[in-house]
Parts: sequence; structure tokens; C-alpha cells
Amino acid sequence: MLCCFCASLRRCSIDCWGHSMLLCSRSMASKTPVGFIGLGNMGSPMAKNLLRHGYPVIATDVFPESCKELQDEGAQILDSPAEVADKADRIITMLPSSPNVIEVYTGPNGILKKVKKGTLLIDSSTIDPSVSKEMALAAEKMGAVFMDAPVSGGVGAASLAKLTFMVGGVEEEYTAAQELLTCMGANVVYCGQVGTGQAAKICNNMLLAIGMIGTAETMNLGIRLGLDPKLLAQILNMSSGRCWSSDSYNPVPGVMEGVPSGNNYQGGFGTTLMAKDLGLAQHTATNTKTPVPLGSLAHQIYRVMCARGYANKDFSSVFQFLREQEDEPEKKGD
Amino acid sequence: MLCCFCASLRRCSIDCWGHSMLLCSRSMASKTPVGFIGLGNMGSPMAKNLLRHGYPVIATDVFPESCKELQDEGAQILDSPAEVADKADRIITMLPSSPNVIEVYTGPNGILKKVKKGTLLIDSSTIDPSVSKEMALAAEKMGAVFMDAPVSGGVGAASLAKLTFMVGGVEEEYTAAQELLTCMGANVVYCGQVGTGQAAKICNNMLLAIGMIGTAETMNLGIRLGLDPKLLAQILNMSSGRCWSSDSYNPVPGVMEGVPSGNNYQGGFGTTLMAKDLGLAQHTATNTKTPVPLGSLAHQIYRVMCARGYANKDFSSVFQFLREQEDEPEKKGD
Amino acid sequence: MLCCFCASLRRCSIDCWGHSMLLCSRSMASKTPVGFIGLGNMGSPMAKNLLRHGYPVIATDVFPESCKELQDEGAQILDSPAEVADKADRIITMLPSSPNVIEVYTGPNGILKKVKKGTLLIDSSTIDPSVSKEMALAAEKMGAVFMDAPVSGGVGAASLAKLTFMVGGVEEEYTAAQELLTCMGANVVYCGQVGTGQAAKICNNMLLAIGMIGTAETMNLGIRLGLDPKLLAQILNMSSGRCWSSDSYNPVPGVMEGVPSGNNYQGGFGTTLMAKDLGLAQHTATNTKTPVPLGSLAHQIYRVMCARGYANKDFSSVFQFLREQEDEPEKKGD
Amino acid sequence: MLCCFCASLRRCSIDCWGHSMLLCSRSMASKTPVGFIGLGNMGSPMAKNLLRHGYPVIATDVFPESCKELQDEGAQILDSPAEVADKADRIITMLPSSPNVIEVYTGPNGILKKVKKGTLLIDSSTIDPSVSKEMALAAEKMGAVFMDAPVSGGVGAASLAKLTFMVGGVEEEYTAAQELLTCMGANVVYCGQVGTGQAAKICNNMLLAIGMIGTAETMNLGIRLGLDPKLLAQILNMSSGRCWSSDSYNPVPGVMEGVPSGNNYQGGFGTTLMAKDLGLAQHTATNTKTPVPLGSLAHQIYRVMCARGYANKDFSSVFQFLREQEDEPEKKGD
Repeated sequence: MLCCFCASLRRCSIDCWGHSMLLCSRSMASKTPVGFIGLGNMGSPMAKNLLRHGYPVIATDVFPESCKELQDEGAQILDSPAEVADKADRIITMLPSSPNVIEVYTGPNGILKKVKKGTLLIDSSTIDPSVSKEMALAAEKMGAVFMDAPVSGGVGAASLAKLTFMVGGVEEEYTAAQELLTCMGANVVYCGQVGTGQAAKICNNMLLAIGMIGTAETMNLGIRLGLDPKLLAQILNMSSGRCWSSDSYNPVPGVMEGVPSGNNYQGGFGTTLMAKDLGLAQHTATNTKTPVPLGSLAHQIYRVMCARGYANKDFSSVFQFLREQEDEPEKKGD
Repeated sequence: MLCCFCASLRRCSIDCWGHSMLLCSRSMASKTPVGFIGLGNMGSPMAKNLLRHGYPVIATDVFPESCKELQDEGAQILDSPAEVADKADRIITMLPSSPNVIEVYTGPNGILKKVKKGTLLIDSSTIDPSVSKEMALAAEKMGAVFMDAPVSGGVGAASLAKLTFMVGGVEEEYTAAQELLTCMGANVVYCGQVGTGQAAKICNNMLLAIGMIGTAETMNLGIRLGLDPKLLAQILNMSSGRCWSSDSYNPVPGVMEGVPSGNNYQGGFGTTLMAKDLGLAQHTATNTKTPVPLGSLAHQIYRVMCARGYANKDFSSVFQFLREQEDEPEKKGD
Repeated sequence: MLCCFCASLRRCSIDCWGHSMLLCSRSMASKTPVGFIGLGNMGSPMAKNLLRHGYPVIATDVFPESCKELQDEGAQILDSPAEVADKADRIITMLPSSPNVIEVYTGPNGILKKVKKGTLLIDSSTIDPSVSKEMALAAEKMGAVFMDAPVSGGVGAASLAKLTFMVGGVEEEYTAAQELLTCMGANVVYCGQVGTGQAAKICNNMLLAIGMIGTAETMNLGIRLGLDPKLLAQILNMSSGRCWSSDSYNPVPGVMEGVPSGNNYQGGFGTTLMAKDLGLAQHTATNTKTPVPLGSLAHQIYRVMCARGYANKDFSSVFQFLREQEDEPEKKGD
Repeated sequence: MLCCFCASLRRCSIDCWGHSMLLCSRSMASKTPVGFIGLGNMGSPMAKNLLRHGYPVIATDVFPESCKELQDEGAQILDSPAEVADKADRIITMLPSSPNVIEVYTGPNGILKKVKKGTLLIDSSTIDPSVSKEMALAAEKMGAVFMDAPVSGGVGAASLAKLTFMVGGVEEEYTAAQELLTCMGANVVYCGQVGTGQAAKICNNMLLAIGMIGTAETMNLGIRLGLDPKLLAQILNMSSGRCWSSDSYNPVPGVMEGVPSGNNYQGGFGTTLMAKDLGLAQHTATNTKTPVPLGSLAHQIYRVMCARGYANKDFSSVFQFLREQEDEPEKKGD
């Protein structure tokens, strides 16, 4: 995996696919099975990429129907996380939120009920870093090792094995984790002790949200002041106002091609998901007593947008949300 | 002038100086005098660069002592804007704020009292775009042409003729303005009708402030969550959180060299000046009924910082402002 | 006028009408004419109350049709502010915004073109206090006296002579102003030098907006946490969370009777008007370098509401704006 | 207990003490012991009031030295919550934060290890309502009943048995809880299902914080605009800007007597405590997806104040925080 680390929502330009297939097929003979828990929109293609790299996969999901596709591709399906832990000594989990992670690890049929000593547990869910730390402690008590490895990149990147993993945990185990993660992603970055993978993801997405809303406000203000949107974007991008949202994902329709603003804010990274990540940022900031005034306001803005019908639009639709509605009576009167 | 347009606070890497000297000396014989009003920290070096390019300069300032240095370099000093307008048909003004501009143009001894028909008036002050429009109307009534051309870049850039000018006004007059502005700056960008130069500058600086505070919050949160600051900056800069403040002017001491955060926030762009520009952004947003929630909160944060002793520090000191004070009793107890 | 000063949007409970009629009819014989400029929704009923108290009224408005009704009630209608100033030595102005005030006082046909020495000028418009100060200076140069006297209370209070006036200006002239203002309002409060009437009104409305949004957020949060809205309002109102918006104008439908929240947010004080007053607060805060973080965010929220279809609803509709939309798909999935 | 419910930080004016002593001594003979866990600044005087009303008290605390005083007054001290649960069938807990509550109830030596069927558990800590719900579920499994009953009022009110209790839990058990709570407080309010006591307290304190910061901003702005602070407070308090912070706890020194602003912000309700409560509000808002823009910004402001040396001052010191520092160089220059 030679390409640069990008963690962005846009696809990295270097294709590492061919190379990694080559690399992996060589060592296929000796592969031991990998457990995979959570076969949703993200987990399912991730597990498939493990199969493609020659790893036998033992999987489970609370919804049996989610398992069928993977079973057809050759995976063994079991009934509970505990049973998976009984059979595999490397397990990857990909779950929607903190309570699911707690249940899957420490619940009555959870991994830790039957985990074997020395098992490597990798959680790719995006959750509160303090929950990652709790899970790591609980795993340690059973003689297992827990690492957090949240991803950047959506369903498309998961299918193409182009995800970015931000990994937190004991450094000595990082190489073992990397071996599996490189089958599912283009970039794997070691961030430090357990929880720092989550921290890195949360921090990036908080700054992303601030930059996006800031860009939307600025573009809207400039347009109202008579500037051409394309020219304004160009000026910002060559100046100190430049950010990823202005130069790679501009929220104003017509300024850039191939981004959700050009497609009525369909696709991309949904407002609900951004609101969820900002909620995590808020939680960790509150818990560590860290002031994050803009991050906090960004959270509130995306929360209001969810309440006002923007839940399923791309998060760059904040430009549309802040903009004056057309045929707004106020404009005529006042 | 071949170098790229950068408008940033950091110096552009291409030296256009030698080239422009060559260019300008050729046409020196035929040059008519240029008026210059406002010889402060910025105006004085700007006027000197006109002299160096062979333009006779006729100048004035409300403080006679500000004129001495320029007089020694060969400029003619007069008593009032009106007198300058009587002698020069191209006049540049560089003043601290809107009221000064109004006084210099429309006051009892103002330019418009004696301006000649066809005179080109270029205002490089950073002011409210609506005042620029007023001045343009007043100038038009006297048969003169007014353009706004605020600058990006500080005293250093002014001395080295490396400023960036964002120009608003009638397009037909742009070439005439460009001739003079290229003697004082490395980049000249035409933005549209009168006032759009100001608009572009205000928009850029608003997004800059949002990006800076957002970067400071994010870096602080990440550090509290156990991330190494340099690693975090690196991750952000390769990801969707990237912005000018994270990759070119990082506010955390030790992350980058050659920026104010590495020098106790000395030098750079002062918090007071940023608060002033955000005040202009706020005024224009209020007047055009444009919502700018993050821009507005950024304004308030820099305003509180001015009240709490950060007025003269670089605007990246917001990182220090938000960070937990050392030896803070709260940390021990709670 | 004995009743308490209420300045609120709700009607004061003491009826001062009968008393004041009595008081005024006694001195009716000797009354000299009063000028009145601006016969809109507010100005027209105010001028009528002057007529009812026996003052001959000389009036004008830019829209001739606005004058008819008052003419029918006995007022003399002239063509311009200047003409009114030529005939009356006490003039009241009631105009929509700062530019109108500047035009009516200092424009080509403005009051100051023909104002007589010693004339008392009372401006009841709600404008920027710095414009009030400018007008006072301009009036002083002509030997006239200018006072600002913005009102609290809407069209209903104007008709019933129940307005509250907050008055700024030279203290010696206050009694003369009070004589006229008590014919149109139930409360007249002297606030200090010129501009402080505006300041008092702007300050009150800024705190009102903050209290209203805060109440809306708090009630919404409590309801989501399972509290009965009426019980929560009761608890707040007996506790330190109590404010005018929680105890006299509760924004949650069903909690109180006789307020706009019970009537689909019709009537009351429109979001557009609140956004305008918050814009003035923002301007004065920016100009005086005063940090107002919550006031500023309140401004932005009302500005977004104007852009999202709430312009003509009562300002307590912020509860509806923040609340989850019904049938919101996000609630089901996530 | 006849006096009104006040929940405010200021003392209620009606003395219910004599009456309740009379009431309680009558039934002293038949009293069964009450367990009390958490003998800090608040818990200790609360437990003493139970002793004074004739209830035998069986107590414990993690710090043995905290127990001495109560032991001297006749309480029996045991080693762990589990042992207390073994001896008492009514237990009150008063702990600093959620993790302590979880430990005391569900930890290895926690109440639930030895709780008897039918035991009434009352938690007076201020914590996340979702933790209260968890504890209620866990208690239910053991056949016990859990109620949340956070208090309003500080150490002084605890000593004088003048606290206000906001109670959430099964309505049938409310009378039993009330019997004990009235020995320690002047007001007991039933709020609804478990968690609503916490919800009511959190909601009140969030609106309180918004009102306080809003009042501080408004008073500061008015003073800068030339208004006398006492007059401005008077105007606000008779108008729609009125709130508890403006009329009962004004943050501007000199406006009111007997409040912390008159005593250099000593005493009262500390900024750290307010920041903690706003953190809880933020958590519950995030968890219930409720937008609270002003509440969220208020949280951030108190968080920054904690980082800037205001941690131990009364929360009304936000006025001082926002105000221009004296001898601020920026005021002279600019």
C-alpha cells in the first residue's frame, strides 16, 4: 500500500488494488480464520475484502438476513459474538454506535464471554474514545488485546478496499492489525494509545464541519455582496481562507463538478451522520472539559438541519439551509 | 508579475522584484504624478514603491511628521486632500477606517472639493463596501472614477511590493489602476463592480478566522484526547479537516516553524485587526440580511480576546486563549 | 399617568386613559400645533392621539395616501418635512429605519432646511443610537433640540395610547417632551443623554430575544426528556430559570392562553422585526467593541428563521423552528 | 411545608423549620433507620437533618474521616454501601457525579449486592437522567425501587433544611419519599417518571445560565452606550427583558445588594458547578438529538471561563469576564 494517506471523503487518486492482491495471494496458504461481527452497509463489503485476500471469515450479525450474502461468498456464519470468539483469534467489529459495541463485547453472549488469551480485537466502529478504553480494559482482563480502528471513507471506499483506518492501541500489536486492515483499506495510520484512533477521526470531522459551514456562510455572504461564486472560490483557494470544503467539496451549486452540491446534495456524507460525529466530539469535549465553541455551534446547526428536513442530504447542503429561500416575502417588504 | 496570487499572510515564494524594476524603468520618462493620501505604516512604503518605479508622488497626511520620510525621498507634500486633487489626476488613498475615508473624500478639504474630471481614485483602505459604493457615487457626480482596492499582506509585503490587491470598480478603468498597483504589489485581482474588492477581502478574512479558531479547538481537543500535536496536524492536513490554518499557520507551538505560534504569538496579524475585519463582515452581513453564525461567533471570540489581554498578539493565539491555564486549581479539585 | 412602566409587549393592566383625557382637556385652549412626520402603522394612530388631546397637528408622509385618514380627522397635510418645520416648533418623527431618519432631517427637503431656533424635535423611530447622536448634533447647529424616544408596544398600544417611550436627550427639555409623549403613551422614562433611549430599547430587546430562544430550547429539551410542558413551565417560573418569555409569553402551544403560541404564532412581534432590532444591537456592539456572544447568536438564529419561512410569524415561533419536524424520517432510522 | 417552591439559589422567605420539627417529633417513636451514602458538603448536613427528625441513620462514605462528625451525632457508620443496604430499607445517596453513582449502586460492594426487596432508594446526586434510568432498571431487577431527587439550593440550604427536591419515579412511591425529603428540604416537587427530577434541574440551570450570560452582555452593552446600570436594570425588570438574573441576582457590581456581584463574585454558585450542569444538559441534548444552540454556547463560555481563572468565582462573574479589562492598551490605540 504505497499511496498517500488521505482520509478524505473523495477518492484517493492512486490505485493500490492490483498491488495488494498480488501481495496477499502469495501468503494465502497459511491463513487462519478471521472473525467479523457487524455485517451492515460497511461491514459486509469489508468482510468480503478479507475473503478476497484469502482469509477464511467466521461472521455474525444480529440480523440473520444480513449474513446471507457473505455466506454465499464462503463465510461461516455463527449465532453470536461469543461463538465467533470461540473459533477465531483475530476479530473485527463494525457496529453503529457505542451501546452496540458494549453489548457485542461485554453482553451475555458477547465476545469476552469466550475470548481466548492473546486474541486480537479490532473495533472499526466510530464511537466515544472512552468506550474504546473501557473495552480495552475489559479485554485486557481476559488476556486479549483491543484496538480501535475507525474508518474514513464511505460504502464506496469499503467496497473498493480504499478505506483509511486510524488505529489506536498497543504499538507492539500494530503490525498484526495492519496485516488485516490493509486488505480493507488504502491507508492505515497509527495514532497512539487505545482511543486515539477515535480521537483522530472525531477531530478531523469536527474541523471538517466547521470548515464546511464557514465556507457556506462565506460564499453566501460574498454572493450577496455581488461577487461571482466561481471567482470568490478561486480567490479563497489561493488565499488564507482556503480549506478542503472550499477547494475540494465546494457547497455552492455550479462552482465545482463531481461533488454533491452539483447533484442537489444527493450522495456524499449525510447530515445525520455528521450530526452523530459532532455529538461524539461534543461528548468527548465535555468529558475532557475542553472548550470547543465553533465545534459546538456546528453541532447545533447540523442538529437543527436534521429537524428541518435536511437529515438525508449531504452535509454541504448547509449552504442551501442558510441561503434565503426563493420567493421569500420578507425580501419584498421590510 | 508572473507569480501566483496568494493573498495569504505568508510570503509568496516567487521574487518578482527584479523583473518589475526592469519593466518600470523603461517607461519612466513619460510618467505623470500620482497623488497619495495616508502615509501610515502601510501607506508610506507603498508610496515609496511608486517613487522607485519613477512616478512623481504628491502626498499628504493629517499628521505632518508622517510625511517627512517620503519628502526626503523626493515626494512633494501638500496640506490637504483637496490640494492633492488639484494637482494629480490619479490618487491613491490608504486610511485606517470608514470615517477617515469619508472625511478624506467628502470632507470640507476633501478630494472631491477640487477633483478634476476623469481623475482615477483608488482606495486601498479596508472599509465597509457600502461606504466604497457611496464614495463611488459621490466621485461619479464630479466626473471622477472611484475604485476600491484593499490589500492582503502586512507592512513587510508593503515594503517589498508584494501586496495582493483585490479590485472593485468599472472594468474599463481596471487597466489604468493595474498599472499603478503592480508597482506596489505582486498580485492584482479584478473582482467586479465597485465594493467587490472589499467584499472579497472581508469574505476571505472571515473564513480565515473561522478556520483558525476551528483549528485551535480541534488541536486542543486532540491533545487532550492523547494525540501528539504534530501527528494530529499531519492527519488533518492529509484529510478533509485540512485548511490554511492547519497546514500553513498552525496555532500550536512546536508544530510548525516560522509562524507566530513558535514565537509566543508575536508578529503576524494582530487579534485587534482580525476583530476589526470581522466587525466589517458582521456589518455587511447584517446589512444584507445574510446569516453568518460561525462568522459571528468568531467575531465575538476575537472581541472577548481583545478584552482579555490578547489584543496585540497574533490571531493564532486563540489556541492559548482556549487552552486550560497551567496551575489551574479547577483541574486538581472538581 | 400613574401606572407602572411596563415596556412589555403585553398590555399594562392599569387603564390611564380616562385620567389623561381629563388632564389634557383642561389645558386644551392654549395649545400650539405639533408637527408629525411618518404616518405609517404606528405614526398614524399616534398622531390621532395628539389630535384627541386637542393638539392641532401638521403632518406629512412620503406616501400621500397615508395622510388621508389623518386629514379627515382634522390634521393639516403639507408636502415635505421642511414645510412642516416652517410651521411647527414641536415635531415628532416616526420612521422605519436610519436612512429614512437621515433623509427626513438632513435631506434636501428635510426638517433642518427650515427648522426654527428652539424647535423641539422628537424622533420615535427605532434606529442606531449613533445616528440619533448625529441628528442631535446637526439640529444643535441650527439652534434646535433633538431627542430620541423610541417606543415599546405595537400598533394596538399605539391606538390605545398605551405605548412606553424611552427618552434620551438634554434633561432640561424632558418636561416639554413628556407633555406630548404622555398623550400617546402610558409610560415615559428618561434614560439620559441623547441616544440612550435607543440604547435602552435595543438592550431590552436583545435580552428578550436571548430569553425567548433560551426558553424555547429549554422547554423543548424538557419535553424530550419526558417532562410535561405545563409542569416544566411552572417549575421554571418558581425557580431561577424564570424569565418574561417563560412566565408571560411562553412559546409552547398549550402552556398559556392569550399568547401567539396558542394561535399558531400569528400576531405578536414578528421575527423580521426582532431580527431588525438584533441587527441594531449587533451594530452598536460592534461599534463599541462590546462582546455579545449570545446576543449575536440570537441575531443569527432569527436571521436564519427569516430565510426559512418564519419572517412573518411571532418571534416565539423559534420553538417551532427548533423542534423536530413531525414525520421526520431521521427519527425512524438512524 | 407550606411555603412556595422556589428552587432558586436565594433563600426562600418563609421559615418552615419550627412547623416541621413539631410534626416530626410526634411520630419519632416508631421510626425505622434510614441509610445515607455520601457524606460530603451536602450529604453531611442532610443526614444530620434526618437525625434531628428522629430517624436513626446508618451511613457510609469512601472517605472515613467524612463520617466522624455524623457518628458523633449518633449515626451508625458501616464500611460499604452493600452493608448499609443489608440494614436499611430506605436509602438516600448524595454523590458528586454519574460514575460515583454507578459504583455505589452497581459496584462490587454496591447497594444492589445486598439490597432487600421493597427497599426505597433515593438518589439526590445531580447526574445524567439516563444513568438514573439505568439505576432504576437495575434496582427493579432486585425488587427495589429507585427514585431520582436532585436538589436545588447550596450548602446553606442543606443545613437549614431548606433545599428543594425535584423528584422522578413511580408515583405510588412518591409519598414514602416525600416523608424523608421534607425533613431535609422546604419544597418537594413531583416531576414524573424516573429521570424527570434530573431533567427538571438540568433544564432550569440551562435557562439560568443563558439568562445570566444574556443579562451580563446586555448590561455591559447598555453601560458602554451611556446608560446608568441601575436605571438599565430597572428598565429591563419592568420590561420584557426581565429575568431572574436581572431582577434577583444582577451580575453588575453596585446594582443590587446581597448578591455575589457585590462581593467580588465570592460565594454563590461556582462557575465550575455551572459548567458541570451545562455539560449534563449538553449530554442529554446530544443523546435526545435536541438542538440547544444558546445552551450549548453558554456551556462553552463557562468552560472557557474555567480555563481562564474564573473556576471558583460565582457564575455571575461572566459580566467581569466579558467586560473590557482596565488599562487595556487596545482602548487607547486602534
